[in-house]
Amino acid sequence: METYKRLPKHIGIIPDGNRRWAQGHSLEKQEGYKFGVEPGVELYQLCIELGIKEMTFYGFTVDNTKRPAEQTKAFQDACVAAVNKLKDGDVDLLVVGNTNSKLFPKELLPYTKRTKFGKGLIKINFLVNYSWSWDLNYGVKQADFDPKDDITKTIASSDISRMDLIIRWGGRRRLSGFLPIQSIYSDFYVVDELWPDYNTSQVHAALQWYQDQDVTLGG
Amino acid sequence: METYKRLPKHIGIIPDGNRRWAQGHSLEKQEGYKFGVEPGVELYQLCIELGIKEMTFYGFTVDNTKRPAEQTKAFQDACVAAVNKLKDGDVDLLVVGNTNSKLFPKELLPYTKRTKFGKGLIKINFLVNYSWSWDLNYGVKQADFDPKDDITKTIASSDISRMDLIIRWGGRRRLSGFLPIQSIYSDFYVVDELWPDYNTSQVHAALQWYQDQDVTLGG
Repeated sequence: METYKRLPKHIGIIPDGNRRWAQGHSLEKQEGYKFGVEPGVELYQLCIELGIKEMTFYGFTVDNTKRPAEQTKAFQDACVAAVNKLKDGDVDLLVVGNTNSKLFPKELLPYTKRTKFGKGLIKINFLVNYSWSWDLNYGVKQADFDPKDDITKTIASSDISRMDLIIRWGGRRRLSGFLPIQSIYSDFYVVDELWPDYNTSQVHAALQWYQDQDVTLGG
Repeated sequence: METYKRLPKHIGIIPDGNRRWAQGHSLEKQEGYKFGVEPGVELYQLCIELGIKEMTFYGFTVDNTKRPAEQTKAFQDACVAAVNKLKDGDVDLLVVGNTNSKLFPKELLPYTKRTKFGKGLIKINFLVNYSWSWDLNYGVKQADFDPKDDITKTIASSDISRMDLIIRWGGRRRLSGFLPIQSIYSDFYVVDELWPDYNTSQVHAALQWYQDQDVTLGG
Protein backbone atom coordinates (compact mmCIF):
# COMPACT_ATOMS: atom_id res chain seq x y z
CA MET A 1 0.00 0.00 0.00
CA GLU A 2 1.36 3.40 -0.92
CA THR A 3 1.61 6.00 1.80
CA TYR A 4 0.92 9.70 1.51
CA LYS A 5 2.26 12.61 3.50
CA ARG A 6 -1.17 14.29 3.37
CA LEU A 7 -4.51 12.68 2.58
CA PRO A 8 -7.86 14.36 1.96
CA LYS A 9 -10.36 13.85 4.78
CA HIS A 10 -13.30 14.00 2.41
CA ILE A 11 -13.32 12.95 -1.26
CA GLY A 12 -16.14 13.80 -3.66
CA ILE A 13 -16.72 11.44 -6.59
CA ILE A 14 -18.28 12.34 -9.95
CA PRO A 15 -18.68 8.96 -11.67
CA ASP A 16 -19.22 10.23 -15.21
CA GLY A 17 -19.01 8.42 -18.55
CA ASN A 18 -21.29 5.40 -18.15
CA ARG A 19 -23.24 6.15 -21.34
CA ARG A 20 -20.13 6.81 -23.41
CA TRP A 21 -18.67 3.56 -22.10
CA ALA A 22 -21.80 1.64 -23.15
CA GLN A 23 -21.65 3.13 -26.64
CA GLY A 24 -17.99 2.19 -26.89
CA HIS A 25 -18.96 -1.39 -26.07
CA SER A 26 -21.83 -1.60 -28.61
CA LEU A 27 -24.45 -1.41 -25.87
CA GLU A 28 -27.47 0.86 -25.49
CA LYS A 29 -26.61 4.01 -23.51
CA GLN A 30 -28.68 3.03 -20.48
CA GLU A 31 -26.87 -0.28 -20.16
CA GLY A 32 -23.74 1.53 -19.01
CA TYR A 33 -25.00 2.44 -15.56
CA LYS A 34 -25.00 -1.07 -14.12
CA PHE A 35 -21.29 -1.28 -14.93
CA GLY A 36 -20.82 1.71 -12.62
CA VAL A 37 -21.90 -0.12 -9.46
CA GLU A 38 -18.87 -2.34 -8.86
CA PRO A 39 -16.34 0.53 -9.32
CA GLY A 40 -18.08 2.38 -6.48
CA VAL A 41 -17.68 -0.62 -4.17
CA GLU A 42 -14.01 -1.01 -5.13
CA LEU A 43 -13.36 2.67 -4.53
CA TYR A 44 -15.06 2.43 -1.12
CA GLN A 45 -12.76 -0.49 -0.24
CA LEU A 46 -9.67 1.46 -1.29
CA CYS A 47 -10.76 4.46 0.78
CA ILE A 48 -11.29 2.24 3.85
CA GLU A 49 -7.76 0.85 3.42
CA LEU A 50 -6.34 4.36 3.07
CA GLY A 51 -8.20 5.66 6.12
CA ILE A 52 -10.28 8.28 4.28
CA LYS A 53 -12.98 9.58 6.66
CA GLU A 54 -15.75 10.69 4.30
CA MET A 55 -16.80 10.13 0.69
CA THR A 56 -19.63 11.64 -1.33
CA PHE A 57 -20.91 10.02 -4.51
CA TYR A 58 -22.73 12.15 -7.08
CA GLY A 59 -25.48 9.63 -7.88
CA PHE A 60 -28.06 11.34 -10.06
CA THR A 61 -29.62 14.79 -10.28
CA VAL A 62 -33.03 16.23 -10.99
CA ASP A 63 -31.47 17.57 -14.23
CA ASN A 64 -30.50 14.00 -15.21
CA THR A 65 -34.11 12.80 -14.92
CA LYS A 66 -34.99 14.85 -18.01
CA ARG A 67 -33.25 12.14 -20.02
CA PRO A 68 -35.17 9.28 -21.73
CA ALA A 69 -37.20 7.14 -19.28
CA GLU A 70 -35.11 4.00 -19.80
CA GLN A 71 -31.96 5.92 -18.82
CA THR A 72 -33.62 7.37 -15.74
CA LYS A 73 -34.74 3.91 -14.63
CA ALA A 74 -31.26 2.53 -15.25
CA PHE A 75 -29.43 5.11 -13.12
CA GLN A 76 -32.07 4.92 -10.37
CA ASP A 77 -31.54 1.13 -10.26
CA ALA A 78 -27.76 1.53 -10.27
CA CYS A 79 -27.90 3.92 -7.30
CA VAL A 80 -30.13 1.57 -5.32
CA ALA A 81 -27.80 -1.33 -6.13
CA ALA A 82 -24.72 0.67 -5.12
CA VAL A 83 -26.24 1.77 -1.81
CA ASN A 84 -27.30 -1.80 -1.07
CA LYS A 85 -23.77 -3.07 -1.68
CA LEU A 86 -22.20 -0.31 0.42
CA LYS A 87 -24.51 -1.30 3.30
CA ASP A 88 -22.64 -4.61 3.47
CA GLY A 89 -19.52 -2.67 4.45
CA ASP A 90 -18.57 -0.59 7.49
CA VAL A 91 -20.28 2.64 6.53
CA ASP A 92 -22.08 5.52 8.15
CA LEU A 93 -24.55 6.15 5.35
CA LEU A 94 -26.56 9.21 4.37
CA VAL A 95 -28.65 9.63 1.23
CA VAL A 96 -29.36 13.26 0.27
CA GLY A 97 -31.85 14.35 -2.38
CA ASN A 98 -35.33 15.68 -3.00
CA THR A 99 -37.67 13.04 -1.61
CA ASN A 100 -40.80 15.04 -2.56
CA SER A 101 -40.76 13.50 -6.02
CA LYS A 102 -41.63 10.07 -7.33
CA LEU A 103 -38.23 10.07 -9.05
CA PHE A 104 -36.61 9.52 -5.66
CA PRO A 105 -36.25 5.71 -5.26
CA LYS A 106 -38.42 4.78 -2.27
CA GLU A 107 -36.05 1.95 -1.31
CA LEU A 108 -33.57 4.65 -0.25
CA LEU A 109 -35.93 6.67 1.96
CA PRO A 110 -34.75 4.99 5.21
CA TYR A 111 -31.21 6.28 4.61
CA THR A 112 -32.12 9.94 4.35
CA LYS A 113 -31.38 9.78 8.07
CA ARG A 114 -27.72 8.88 8.69
CA THR A 115 -27.48 5.16 9.51
CA LYS A 116 -24.51 3.13 10.69
CA PHE A 117 -23.74 -0.28 9.16
CA GLY A 118 -21.05 -2.69 10.39
CA LYS A 119 -18.31 -0.78 12.19
CA GLY A 120 -19.34 2.50 10.53
CA LEU A 121 -15.72 3.30 9.68
CA ILE A 122 -16.38 5.86 6.94
CA LYS A 123 -19.09 8.42 6.25
CA ILE A 124 -20.61 7.73 2.84
CA ASN A 125 -22.93 10.36 1.38
CA PHE A 126 -24.88 9.44 -1.72
CA LEU A 127 -26.68 12.13 -3.71
CA VAL A 128 -29.90 10.83 -5.23
CA ASN A 129 -32.40 13.01 -7.11
CA TYR A 130 -30.22 15.91 -6.00
CA SER A 131 -30.46 19.47 -7.28
CA TRP A 132 -28.09 22.30 -6.39
CA SER A 133 -30.96 24.79 -6.53
CA TRP A 134 -33.12 22.62 -4.23
CA ASP A 135 -30.14 22.25 -1.88
CA LEU A 136 -29.43 25.98 -1.61
CA ASN A 137 -33.09 27.00 -1.32
CA TYR A 138 -33.93 24.35 1.28
CA GLY A 139 -33.38 26.39 4.45
CA VAL A 140 -35.37 29.49 3.57
CA LYS A 141 -38.42 27.33 2.79
CA GLN A 142 -38.51 25.95 6.35
CA ALA A 143 -41.09 27.33 8.81
CA ASP A 144 -38.42 28.23 11.37
CA PHE A 145 -36.18 30.10 8.92
CA ASP A 146 -34.69 33.28 10.34
CA PRO A 147 -33.29 35.84 7.83
CA LYS A 148 -30.38 36.32 10.24
CA ASP A 149 -29.35 32.72 9.57
CA ASP A 150 -26.39 32.05 7.30
CA ILE A 151 -28.15 30.36 4.38
CA THR A 152 -24.97 28.53 3.43
CA LYS A 153 -25.53 26.56 6.68
CA THR A 154 -29.25 25.86 6.27
CA ILE A 155 -28.79 23.93 3.02
CA ALA A 156 -30.38 20.50 2.56
CA SER A 157 -26.92 18.92 2.49
CA SER A 158 -25.76 20.61 5.71
CA ASP A 159 -24.76 17.24 7.19
CA ILE A 160 -22.15 16.85 4.43
CA SER A 161 -18.79 18.46 5.22
CA ARG A 162 -16.50 20.49 2.96
CA MET A 163 -14.84 18.31 0.31
CA ASP A 164 -11.04 18.46 0.16
CA LEU A 165 -10.66 16.68 -3.15
CA ILE A 166 -13.13 16.04 -5.96
CA ILE A 167 -12.27 13.35 -8.51
CA ARG A 168 -14.28 13.34 -11.72
CA TRP A 169 -14.09 10.43 -14.14
CA GLY A 170 -14.85 10.76 -17.86
CA GLY A 171 -12.70 13.74 -18.84
CA ARG A 172 -15.11 16.62 -18.32
CA ARG A 173 -13.68 19.55 -16.34
CA ARG A 174 -16.77 20.94 -14.64
CA LEU A 175 -18.71 20.52 -11.40
CA SER A 176 -22.19 20.15 -12.95
CA GLY A 177 -23.93 21.34 -9.78
CA PHE A 178 -22.08 19.03 -7.37
CA LEU A 179 -22.58 20.50 -3.85
CA PRO A 180 -21.86 24.19 -4.58
CA ILE A 181 -21.07 25.07 -0.97
CA GLN A 182 -18.95 22.04 -0.09
CA SER A 183 -16.95 22.36 -3.35
CA ILE A 184 -15.95 26.03 -2.82
CA TYR A 185 -12.36 25.25 -1.80
CA SER A 186 -12.03 21.71 -3.20
CA ASP A 187 -9.09 20.68 -5.33
CA PHE A 188 -10.43 19.22 -8.55
CA TYR A 189 -8.83 16.25 -10.29
CA VAL A 190 -10.04 14.85 -13.61
CA VAL A 191 -9.53 11.25 -14.74
CA ASP A 192 -9.85 10.92 -18.51
CA GLU A 193 -11.00 7.28 -18.41
CA LEU A 194 -14.72 6.58 -18.13
CA TRP A 195 -16.16 5.53 -14.77
CA PRO A 196 -16.79 1.85 -15.66
CA ASP A 197 -13.07 1.68 -16.50
CA TYR A 198 -12.21 2.59 -12.89
CA ASN A 199 -8.99 1.26 -11.45
CA THR A 200 -7.07 2.01 -8.28
CA SER A 201 -4.10 3.59 -10.08
CA GLN A 202 -6.36 6.49 -11.11
CA VAL A 203 -7.09 7.22 -7.46
CA HIS A 204 -3.44 6.91 -6.47
CA ALA A 205 -2.54 9.41 -9.20
CA ALA A 206 -5.15 11.81 -7.80
CA LEU A 207 -3.82 11.38 -4.26
CA GLN A 208 -0.22 11.84 -5.41
CA TRP A 209 -1.27 15.10 -7.01
CA TYR A 210 -3.37 16.19 -4.03
CA GLN A 211 -0.61 15.76 -1.44
CA ASP A 212 1.45 18.45 -3.20
CA GLN A 213 -1.35 21.04 -3.31
CA ASP A 214 -1.40 23.75 -0.68
CA VAL A 215 -4.57 24.28 1.31
CA THR A 216 -5.30 27.97 1.81
CA LEU A 217 -9.12 28.09 2.05
CA GLY A 218 -8.91 31.39 0.21
CA GLY A 219 -6.50 33.02 2.69
CA MET B 1 -6.55 35.68 -36.00
CA GLU B 2 -7.61 32.14 -35.28
CA THR B 3 -11.27 31.27 -35.71
CA TYR B 4 -13.32 28.95 -33.56
CA LYS B 5 -16.40 26.91 -34.35
CA ARG B 6 -17.82 27.67 -30.91
CA LEU B 7 -16.79 30.44 -28.52
CA PRO B 8 -17.83 30.98 -24.91
CA LYS B 9 -20.18 33.93 -24.41
CA HIS B 10 -18.84 34.60 -20.94
CA ILE B 11 -15.33 33.88 -19.65
CA GLY B 12 -14.38 33.97 -15.98
CA ILE B 13 -10.76 34.79 -15.13
CA ILE B 14 -8.88 33.73 -11.99
CA PRO B 15 -5.59 35.65 -12.25
CA ASP B 16 -3.59 33.66 -9.69
CA GLY B 17 0.14 33.47 -9.05
CA ASN B 18 1.21 37.10 -8.62
CA ARG B 19 2.99 36.44 -5.32
CA ARG B 20 4.75 33.32 -6.58
CA TRP B 21 5.85 35.28 -9.65
CA ALA B 22 7.31 38.03 -7.44
CA GLN B 23 9.23 35.50 -5.36
CA GLY B 24 10.57 33.92 -8.54
CA HIS B 25 11.86 37.34 -9.58
CA SER B 26 13.51 38.15 -6.22
CA LEU B 27 10.82 40.66 -5.32
CA GLU B 28 8.70 40.99 -2.19
CA LYS B 29 5.44 39.05 -2.51
CA GLN B 30 3.24 42.15 -2.65
CA GLU B 31 5.25 43.56 -5.55
CA GLY B 32 3.78 40.92 -7.85
CA TYR B 33 0.31 42.39 -8.05
CA LYS B 34 1.24 45.43 -10.11
CA PHE B 35 2.59 43.08 -12.77
CA GLY B 36 -0.93 41.63 -13.03
CA VAL B 37 -2.53 44.83 -14.34
CA GLU B 38 -1.22 44.86 -17.91
CA PRO B 39 -2.12 41.17 -18.57
CA GLY B 40 -5.75 42.01 -17.74
CA VAL B 41 -5.76 44.82 -20.31
CA GLU B 42 -4.17 42.58 -22.95
CA LEU B 43 -6.72 39.84 -22.26
CA TYR B 44 -9.55 42.36 -22.57
CA GLN B 45 -8.17 43.42 -25.97
CA LEU B 46 -7.98 39.81 -27.16
CA CYS B 47 -11.56 39.17 -26.04
CA ILE B 48 -12.78 42.26 -27.90
CA GLU B 49 -11.06 41.00 -31.08
CA LEU B 50 -12.61 37.56 -30.64
CA GLY B 51 -16.10 38.96 -30.05
CA ILE B 52 -16.50 37.62 -26.48
CA LYS B 53 -19.59 39.23 -24.90
CA GLU B 54 -18.81 39.11 -21.18
CA MET B 55 -15.77 38.68 -18.92
CA THR B 56 -15.52 38.47 -15.15
CA PHE B 57 -12.25 39.09 -13.32
CA TYR B 58 -11.74 37.62 -9.85
CA GLY B 59 -10.09 40.69 -8.33
CA PHE B 60 -9.77 40.14 -4.58
CA THR B 61 -11.86 38.53 -1.87
CA VAL B 62 -12.68 39.24 1.75
CA ASP B 63 -10.66 36.08 2.54
CA ASN B 64 -7.62 37.63 0.78
CA THR B 65 -7.75 40.71 3.02
CA LYS B 66 -6.64 38.55 5.96
CA ARG B 67 -3.15 38.63 4.41
CA PRO B 68 -0.44 41.08 5.56
CA ALA B 69 -1.47 44.74 5.20
CA GLU B 70 1.13 45.54 2.53
CA GLN B 71 -0.25 42.73 0.33
CA THR B 72 -3.83 43.92 0.84
CA LYS B 73 -2.86 47.45 -0.17
CA ALA B 74 -0.99 46.12 -3.21
CA PHE B 75 -3.92 44.10 -4.59
CA GLN B 76 -6.39 46.88 -3.84
CA ASP B 77 -4.18 49.29 -5.80
CA ALA B 78 -3.79 46.78 -8.65
CA CYS B 79 -7.58 46.36 -8.94
CA VAL B 80 -8.12 50.13 -9.02
CA ALA B 81 -5.41 50.48 -11.67
CA ALA B 82 -6.89 47.67 -13.77
CA VAL B 83 -10.41 49.11 -13.64
CA ASN B 84 -9.08 52.56 -14.57
CA LYS B 85 -7.27 51.11 -17.60
CA LEU B 86 -10.31 49.10 -18.72
CA LYS B 87 -12.38 52.30 -18.58
CA ASP B 88 -10.28 53.61 -21.46
CA GLY B 89 -11.71 50.83 -23.62
CA ASP B 90 -15.19 50.00 -24.93
CA VAL B 91 -16.58 48.35 -21.83
CA ASP B 92 -19.86 48.01 -19.99
CA LEU B 93 -18.39 47.89 -16.49
CA LEU B 94 -19.73 46.52 -13.22
CA VAL B 95 -17.81 46.20 -9.97
CA VAL B 96 -19.30 43.68 -7.50
CA GLY B 97 -18.24 43.31 -3.87
CA ASN B 98 -19.08 44.16 -0.30
CA THR B 99 -19.02 47.95 -0.13
CA ASN B 100 -19.94 47.99 3.57
CA SER B 101 -16.30 47.70 4.50
CA LYS B 102 -13.37 50.09 4.42
CA LEU B 103 -11.47 47.39 2.51
CA PHE B 104 -13.58 48.19 -0.56
CA PRO B 105 -11.59 50.82 -2.52
CA LYS B 106 -13.76 53.93 -2.54
CA GLU B 107 -12.50 54.93 -6.00
CA LEU B 108 -14.52 52.01 -7.37
CA LEU B 109 -17.84 52.85 -5.69
CA PRO B 110 -19.26 54.64 -8.80
CA TYR B 111 -18.96 51.43 -10.83
CA THR B 112 -21.05 49.26 -8.51
CA LYS B 113 -23.80 50.43 -10.85
CA ARG B 114 -23.16 49.17 -14.40
CA THR B 115 -21.59 51.96 -16.46
CA LYS B 116 -20.85 52.12 -20.18
CA PHE B 117 -17.52 53.47 -21.46
CA GLY B 118 -16.66 54.09 -25.13
CA LYS B 119 -18.78 51.86 -27.36
CA GLY B 120 -19.54 49.49 -24.45
CA LEU B 121 -18.75 46.45 -26.62
CA ILE B 122 -18.18 43.95 -23.82
CA LYS B 123 -19.56 43.47 -20.34
CA ILE B 124 -16.71 43.47 -17.84
CA ASN B 125 -17.45 42.40 -14.29
CA PHE B 126 -14.78 42.95 -11.68
CA LEU B 127 -15.05 41.30 -8.26
CA VAL B 128 -13.61 43.50 -5.54
CA ASN B 129 -13.78 42.68 -1.83
CA TYR B 130 -16.02 39.80 -2.91
CA SER B 131 -17.13 36.93 -0.68
CA TRP B 132 -19.10 33.88 -1.83
CA SER B 133 -20.92 33.78 1.50
CA TRP B 134 -21.82 37.48 1.30
CA ASP B 135 -22.99 36.95 -2.29
CA LEU B 136 -25.29 34.01 -1.48
CA ASN B 137 -26.71 35.55 1.70
CA TYR B 138 -27.35 38.95 0.12
CA GLY B 139 -30.97 38.46 -0.96
CA VAL B 140 -32.41 37.11 2.28
CA LYS B 141 -31.01 40.10 4.19
CA GLN B 142 -33.03 42.56 2.08
CA ALA B 143 -36.21 44.09 3.56
CA ASP B 144 -38.34 42.93 0.62
CA PHE B 145 -37.13 39.31 0.70
CA ASP B 146 -39.90 36.78 0.14
CA PRO B 147 -39.18 33.16 1.21
CA LYS B 148 -40.91 32.06 -2.01
CA ASP B 149 -38.09 33.71 -3.96
CA ASP B 150 -35.43 31.53 -5.54
CA ILE B 151 -32.41 32.57 -3.48
CA THR B 152 -30.07 31.63 -6.31
CA LYS B 153 -31.57 34.65 -8.13
CA THR B 154 -31.43 37.15 -5.27
CA ILE B 155 -27.65 36.92 -4.92
CA ALA B 156 -25.54 40.10 -4.83
CA SER B 157 -24.00 39.16 -8.18
CA SER B 158 -27.35 38.58 -9.89
CA ASP B 159 -26.39 40.94 -12.73
CA ILE B 160 -23.54 38.58 -13.69
CA SER B 161 -24.58 35.79 -16.06
CA ARG B 162 -23.62 32.12 -16.03
CA MET B 163 -19.96 31.62 -17.02
CA ASP B 164 -19.32 29.22 -19.91
CA LEU B 165 -15.58 28.94 -19.42
CA ILE B 166 -13.37 29.71 -16.43
CA ILE B 167 -9.63 30.08 -17.01
CA ARG B 168 -7.40 29.98 -13.96
CA TRP B 169 -3.75 30.95 -14.16
CA GLY B 170 -1.11 29.67 -11.75
CA GLY B 171 -1.75 25.92 -11.81
CA ARG B 172 -4.24 25.51 -8.97
CA ARG B 173 -7.28 23.42 -9.84
CA ARG B 174 -9.95 24.93 -7.60
CA LEU B 175 -12.59 27.64 -7.70
CA SER B 176 -11.70 29.33 -4.38
CA GLY B 177 -15.19 30.76 -3.97
CA PHE B 178 -15.46 32.29 -7.46
CA LEU B 179 -19.19 32.96 -8.10
CA PRO B 180 -20.65 29.64 -6.85
CA ILE B 181 -23.91 30.02 -8.76
CA GLN B 182 -22.48 31.24 -12.08
CA SER B 183 -19.77 28.53 -12.05
CA ILE B 184 -22.18 25.59 -11.60
CA TYR B 185 -21.95 24.44 -15.24
CA SER B 186 -18.72 26.18 -16.27
CA ASP B 187 -15.96 24.33 -18.06
CA PHE B 188 -12.75 24.84 -16.12
CA TYR B 189 -9.37 25.30 -17.79
CA VAL B 190 -6.11 25.67 -15.86
CA VAL B 191 -3.01 27.46 -17.19
CA ASP B 192 0.11 26.37 -15.34
CA GLU B 193 1.97 29.63 -15.94
CA LEU B 194 1.58 32.41 -13.39
CA TRP B 195 -0.72 35.35 -14.22
CA PRO B 196 2.05 37.96 -14.77
CA ASP B 197 3.43 35.55 -17.42
CA TYR B 198 0.16 35.85 -19.38
CA ASN B 199 0.33 35.47 -23.13
CA THR B 200 -2.34 35.10 -25.81
CA SER B 201 -1.34 31.54 -26.71
CA GLN B 202 -2.58 30.40 -23.29
CA VAL B 203 -6.03 31.77 -24.08
CA HIS B 204 -6.04 30.25 -27.55
CA ALA B 205 -5.21 26.86 -26.03
CA ALA B 206 -8.15 27.27 -23.63
CA LEU B 207 -10.49 28.21 -26.48
CA GLN B 208 -9.27 25.31 -28.63
CA TRP B 209 -10.08 22.99 -25.77
CA TYR B 210 -13.42 24.66 -25.02
CA GLN B 211 -14.79 24.37 -28.54
CA ASP B 212 -14.64 20.57 -28.30
CA GLN B 213 -16.52 20.34 -24.99
CA ASP B 214 -20.20 19.50 -25.05
CA VAL B 215 -22.60 21.81 -23.23
CA THR B 216 -25.28 19.83 -21.39
CA LEU B 217 -26.15 22.08 -18.44
CA GLY B 218 -26.58 18.90 -16.41
CA GLY B 219 -29.12 17.34 -18.80
